[in-house]
Amino acid sequence: MEEATGVVKHVLLVKFKDDVSPEKIDELTVEWANLVDVIEPMKDFHWGTDVSFENKAEGFTHLFVSTFESTEGVTEYFYHPAHKEFGKKALPCLEKFIVFDYKPTIVKQ
Amino acid sequence: MEEATGVVKHVLLVKFKDDVSPEKIDELTVEWANLVDVIEPMKDFHWGTDVSFENKAEGFTHLFVSTFESTEGVTEYFYHPAHKEFGKKALPCLEKFIVFDYKPTIVKQ
Repeated sequence: MEEATGVVKHVLLVKFKDDVSPEKIDELTVEWANLVDVIEPMKDFHWGTDVSFENKAEGFTHLFVSTFESTEGVTEYFYHPAHKEFGKKALPCLEKFIVFDYKPTIVKQ
Repeated sequence: MEEATGVVKHVLLVKFKDDVSPEKIDELTVEWANLVDVIEPMKDFHWGTDVSFENKAEGFTHLFVSTFESTEGVTEYFYHPAHKEFGKKALPCLEKFIVFDYKPTIVKQ
């Protein structure tokens, strides 16, 4: 089993607090996406809501994925003032979240 | 904010039981990846282990992502005999897991 690429996917699974409006979630999502233009190692951003019929999402409703060239890039992003500023707005809106960084790996037969 | 593609990403976050060996995890991962050849709507499979320094993964150590053309495709996969057979082997190895399906969406400025 071999690593496919050197990129790192930075995944957040999120459950927002009940009193956070859909408009506020949209606003935060746009602001988060805009960090791609500000934080050099952040290469891509996408997101989605859970559409699974299995009901095994443990209450998490949103998933956000950004892409970096390396784990060092994620660290740079994490400590970047623009990310810290965003975090100050976003964190109080979260009931719970999981952060999972991984290097996408394809199984070689 | 507009949907980017029609595909559905089927994400599993997993923590294996402590007594499950790395070799067993490799074996299960290969078997899981091989379902791409057996279950028509399953288009892609990749995985990775957590490399985040944030320590916010809530004990989850592995992430597995497969891609489908639609939510109906995920349902077909879920009920496919080959997936059920795989599940019988994999589920007893899991301490906990989260299933999250989403349609990757890109923020339009």
